[in-house]
Amino acid sequence: MNVLWIYAHPEPRSLGGALRDEGVRTLRELGAEVRESDLYAMKWKPVVDADDFGSAAGEERLIVGATSKDAYHSGELSDDILAEHEKLAWADTVIFQFPLWWYGMPAILKGWFDRVFVKGFAYGVRHPDGHTLRYGEGALAGKRAMVLLTAGAPDATIGPRGVNGEINDLLFPLQHGTLWYAGMSVLPPLTVCGADRVSPEQYADAAEALRERLRTLSTRDPIPFRRQNDGDYDEDLVLRDHLAPGRGGIGVHTA
Amino acid sequence: MNVLWIYAHPEPRSLGGALRDEGVRTLRELGAEVRESDLYAMKWKPVVDADDFGSAAGEERLIVGATSKDAYHSGELSDDILAEHEKLAWADTVIFQFPLWWYGMPAILKGWFDRVFVKGFAYGVRHPDGHTLRYGEGALAGKRAMVLLTAGAPDATIGPRGVNGEINDLLFPLQHGTLWYAGMSVLPPLTVCGADRVSPEQYADAAEALRERLRTLSTRDPIPFRRQNDGDYDEDLVLRDHLAPGRGGIGVHTA
Repeated sequence: MNVLWIYAHPEPRSLGGALRDEGVRTLRELGAEVRESDLYAMKWKPVVDADDFGSAAGEERLIVGATSKDAYHSGELSDDILAEHEKLAWADTVIFQFPLWWYGMPAILKGWFDRVFVKGFAYGVRHPDGHTLRYGEGALAGKRAMVLLTAGAPDATIGPRGVNGEINDLLFPLQHGTLWYAGMSVLPPLTVCGADRVSPEQYADAAEALRERLRTLSTRDPIPFRRQNDGDYDEDLVLRDHLAPGRGGIGVHTA
Repeated sequence: MNVLWIYAHPEPRSLGGALRDEGVRTLRELGAEVRESDLYAMKWKPVVDADDFGSAAGEERLIVGATSKDAYHSGELSDDILAEHEKLAWADTVIFQFPLWWYGMPAILKGWFDRVFVKGFAYGVRHPDGHTLRYGEGALAGKRAMVLLTAGAPDATIGPRGVNGEINDLLFPLQHGTLWYAGMSVLPPLTVCGADRVSPEQYADAAEALRERLRTLSTRDPIPFRRQNDGDYDEDLVLRDHLAPGRGGIGVHTA
């Protein structure tokens, strides 16, 4: 197993840092190869701008999608983006670890997706028959992904009727709209609540939960998101009437 | 009306840039005062780190929440954060405008929230009676917010059963988990689809839709998110059984 561990926390001496160390050590004990993108340590640039695209950007109006696709195909993407593409090509499994900030990713990780998932690579890719590869198909199909979160909120508040919203609903733009969009199979997330105030006993439980999830990375069933191009959606990419009839919301996109 | 217009697009010559210009001009014609935070033009720093917190950070383990609260109360937050606090204090209405990237905010805007919405200011604030001000109460209560989006996706794909998820569900972490969390009343978003390929006629329609939304900023009903502390949630902050009985998901948090 080739695992890429993407880590977005400013403080290695944190609960997140301890879990990262625990996780990487566990994977190596299990015989996996592990590579890391420690975004804070790398001083990852999170902001998409013309500098990402070499001469493909030119002096004209910057259209991010089209320009990123040109730069991708002409090999002019900046070196830091190319290095992440190389790691993704190598990996069969990717862990995305971050503290939940404002119910989403820290900006440094959002900017990893904004910059690395360029057009022609992670979106805007067509099958030879003309259909767009998206949601279950694409450059990253066949790879597995898992989100590992630390959160200050108590468990119940990110449960099905918790005030903050259920964690899979909060992660829908990432898990479905980004990872599944690009073709990855997404394993259920692991969330460690009570960050900044866990007891040694709670830490031991969290570390064991993480080890268990890492031992079963290749066998656990992914979230059964619907595939775009297998008939569940119509020509306008709207879910067909007979599926989850009369319902709307995020839940309808899971089979 | 004092309107703060927060804009996060790398290219002023874009659909987003044109709508921003249209919007600011319209507001001034309506007699509003307008201030702007053009995050790309400001070269806004999106990454939370110890430099944000002056001497409050020290050499010990950085605990972002606690340290940001210390720096907020001791006046040691960095000047760029303080400038945004001053604008927020001035504004009664805030527009958040961005292109939808991977079904969320560009990193530069996520990093505006990560850095500006510090503990003691936007979260972790208690009422004198001990309850935490959150979801409908807080530092920004009484202010209005509206999201203005440009999106490449066609309308139907971000509708109730569209493959990408319904736009209000995608925006839940921002509209509910961030803006409403901090107390702001959130108006329904305005989404302009088909970015990068709108015709002059489509642009005219989008501009008129925007002007109409700006004319009604102070009168339109906000999204009726539930208040945390008005009895709808129990002691664990879970929605009480008799409300939206038997249901889960994002929809239950709207009355």
